Amino acid sequence: MDSVTYQPLVDALASGQPQSVVDAANLFNAADLAGFIEQNLDAETGETLYRSLPLALRAKVLGYTSQDTQLLLTQATPLDELALLVAQMPSDDRADFYSLLDESRQQQLIKTLDDEDRKDLTALLAYPEGTAGALMSTDYAVFESGITASEAIEILRKTAENKETIYQSYVIDENRVLIGVVSLRRLIVAKPDTVIDSLLATGLVSTHTDTPQDDVARLIAKYDLLALPVLDEQNRLAGIITYDDAMDVIEAEATEDIHKGGTVSNLDTGITTASPFSLYRSRIQWLVILVFANIFTGAGIAHFEDIIGAHLALLFFMPLLVASAGNAGAQSATLVVRGIATGDVVNRDWLRLFSKELLVATALGLTMALTVWTVGMFRTEIAIATTVAITMIAVVLAGGLIGILLPLLLNRLGIDPAAASIPLITTIADVSGVLIYFSIAKTILGA
Amino acid sequence: MDSVTYQPLVDALASGQPQSVVDAANLFNAADLAGFIEQNLDAETGETLYRSLPLALRAKVLGYTSQDTQLLLTQATPLDELALLVAQMPSDDRADFYSLLDESRQQQLIKTLDDEDRKDLTALLAYPEGTAGALMSTDYAVFESGITASEAIEILRKTAENKETIYQSYVIDENRVLIGVVSLRRLIVAKPDTVIDSLLATGLVSTHTDTPQDDVARLIAKYDLLALPVLDEQNRLAGIITYDDAMDVIEAEATEDIHKGGTVSNLDTGITTASPFSLYRSRIQWLVILVFANIFTGAGIAHFEDIIGAHLALLFFMPLLVASAGNAGAQSATLVVRGIATGDVVNRDWLRLFSKELLVATALGLTMALTVWTVGMFRTEIAIATTVAITMIAVVLAGGLIGILLPLLLNRLGIDPAAASIPLITTIADVSGVLIYFSIAKTILGA
Repeated sequence: MDSVTYQPLVDALASGQPQSVVDAANLFNAADLAGFIEQNLDAETGETLYRSLPLALRAKVLGYTSQDTQLLLTQATPLDELALLVAQMPSDDRADFYSLLDESRQQQLIKTLDDEDRKDLTALLAYPEGTAGALMSTDYAVFESGITASEAIEILRKTAENKETIYQSYVIDENRVLIGVVSLRRLIVAKPDTVIDSLLATGLVSTHTDTPQDDVARLIAKYDLLALPVLDEQNRLAGIITYDDAMDVIEAEATEDIHKGGTVSNLDTGITTASPFSLYRSRIQWLVILVFANIFTGAGIAHFEDIIGAHLALLFFMPLLVASAGNAGAQSATLVVRGIATGDVVNRDWLRLFSKELLVATALGLTMALTVWTVGMFRTEIAIATTVAITMIAVVLAGGLIGILLPLLLNRLGIDPAAASIPLITTIADVSGVLIYFSIAKTILGA
Repeated sequence: MDSVTYQPLVDALASGQPQSVVDAANLFNAADLAGFIEQNLDAETGETLYRSLPLALRAKVLGYTSQDTQLLLTQATPLDELALLVAQMPSDDRADFYSLLDESRQQQLIKTLDDEDRKDLTALLAYPEGTAGALMSTDYAVFESGITASEAIEILRKTAENKETIYQSYVIDENRVLIGVVSLRRLIVAKPDTVIDSLLATGLVSTHTDTPQDDVARLIAKYDLLALPVLDEQNRLAGIITYDDAMDVIEAEATEDIHKGGTVSNLDTGITTASPFSLYRSRIQWLVILVFANIFTGAGIAHFEDIIGAHLALLFFMPLLVASAGNAGAQSATLVVRGIATGDVVNRDWLRLFSKELLVATALGLTMALTVWTVGMFRTEIAIATTVAITMIAVVLAGGLIGILLPLLLNRLGIDPAAASIPLITTIADVSGVLIYFSIAKTILGA
């Protein structure tokens, strides 16, 4: 990735002259200023830069920093200044920032907002986290039906400053019910006296305040939307969600799914920033659960002590057989869990996926049986090599099918299928693997 | 997700009247028409709908369908009609579509393009897949330095139809070197006679044609860009990449990483659409590699046959100990691999992450040691329970540290760290787990 040269900022901050710092800051966009501030929080130059910025830019820069940094930078800000800062924030950033503050500060701050902003903030805070309502901005451009393209453009010119976007505007009726969406592209290209109602996009796409954020992101991606309108229960326009927020959601949801797949729970940050304690907490739960699950595998082995004692060579092949079951299951579970997350797989596909896995896992099992039989022939007697080869086919098939069915079952039960993590699948496959292996061994070799 | 009602289309297609079909199609946007067509390819109503659409809409709808569907829908299209269709496509879609065709059709088709389009297509096709060059569109809006805002808007009005976006325009010098970016928002808000050079965005963000597509997507997400300008080696503007393409890249890269993490290689589609053979091919490689790796674990067990024979109770605890090592490693590897993918973790962090894991894994190991010691006390003699508890601390620590170091090592060697899949980590942890367990057992219990 092309990296940014912060030299002008470093020089200006070293000079100690406030005007030089402002001039240097003017060379950078808000995201890069935020990046510099985050990197230099310990060195205090980060905070110095932040304090040198004009208020409006400070509000913008805060939108690009982490929650911890937002708190750190504003903890010493006097209430009157904080009020001005918060007034400059976009509505969605404002709600996010507000919910970080402690209660007494929240109560002081909300009194400073004007009526409209206060109502707006209270409404946004009421939506549960992870829903469209919590994600949306109320700074959207809106027109009444019947005005012309040139009138619409004139309205946008005058109000642009306070809008999240002016590239998509929303046409509503007298009850604020959404009629349609008109793009600035169409407004610009149209003859000035065209009525906007004839410029609405076909196939209006909208969602509701209670839609989960991953569905929101998927809608925006599917329709290549710049912004998605969000409606309340009466189909009145309540807010919009822009593509940049959808992108963050896609990235965050992928991280959450990947973490879950590795049995790391509820960690809303990366390993670099997470504290040792939050890492411990997010990991210990599944580790302990899986220890108890593995006691079954141990019990399985103990149950077959006789046959193991009689043929110790069987132990040599145990790790590769049970691991193969787990690995085949890990693969099919990975494919199904990701498929459900992207909308590619739905529950009613189960029989089709099961049949396909039956075919694929059989082919995989045969290939691997041939491999281990060859290895076995060099290492042990033919009866054991044959036992191992037959077991391989059975365990790969069992693992593969468990990997298909478990995520679908969880999804059916309303549990996030990402809980069908590879370690969980591996553990279940281990138990099955041990039981299958020694049962086959007992049959072929005799007790 | 809110689902679409296709009833008007179904009714119109059932009526068999071409005009009704066109009227019904006008109610839907291109993405939904594409969705209907994909769902009804077998029933032939999909293809009937496609053939009823006007040419420009057909070109647009194709952009929302899969490559297989694109080929299917156009395989019988006569060359002259195909030429008209291709001429209507956006430049990036055109290049993608063209590369799907067989060579003879490509040669016939390229002759039908006008000079500019042909040069453009040839240039786009030359960029390697997965780079900014292969992803970009050449349909961008460009201004020469020195014109006014009203002149710029007038240019956009006239040329909007052929532009990927008119919301970001690019100001270039006489050598096509990029000077800056101006948004339509700023052009609209500015006084009409303002020179555009004073309206450029601060902190120009751009990239080069050879930048990998995941870095492109990350830039667009980081800076909340609507479009990212792409430069050639001489810093001349070569194309732009819009946010919607970046979203698709983020989703596709996450899928690829998740698949790799489950040892599924090179599968560029989901489990639903992938053929059994491509599933087999994407899975067999790692399964066989891991079988051979697990032979070491078997050899480890064989090496300690004496101590196992003397204390068969040790076998009971083996699965939970080696699984715990693998699970702790799976967790830390998951965190590091995802951290590298999102840019949160860089190689020079290794010592800090290693130290943090030392702390976290020790805490995890102690908790789990206490758990298994308690289990062990109910089940076996104190010497074995103690052996198991000590081993637990050691193997969780070993697994956790392997999970941190292996992805960083792969990344350092220029290998995709996602290759440090959970099954691979588990296998390595298994071998270490067996060796650690029985070595400790031998020390405590005697040979």
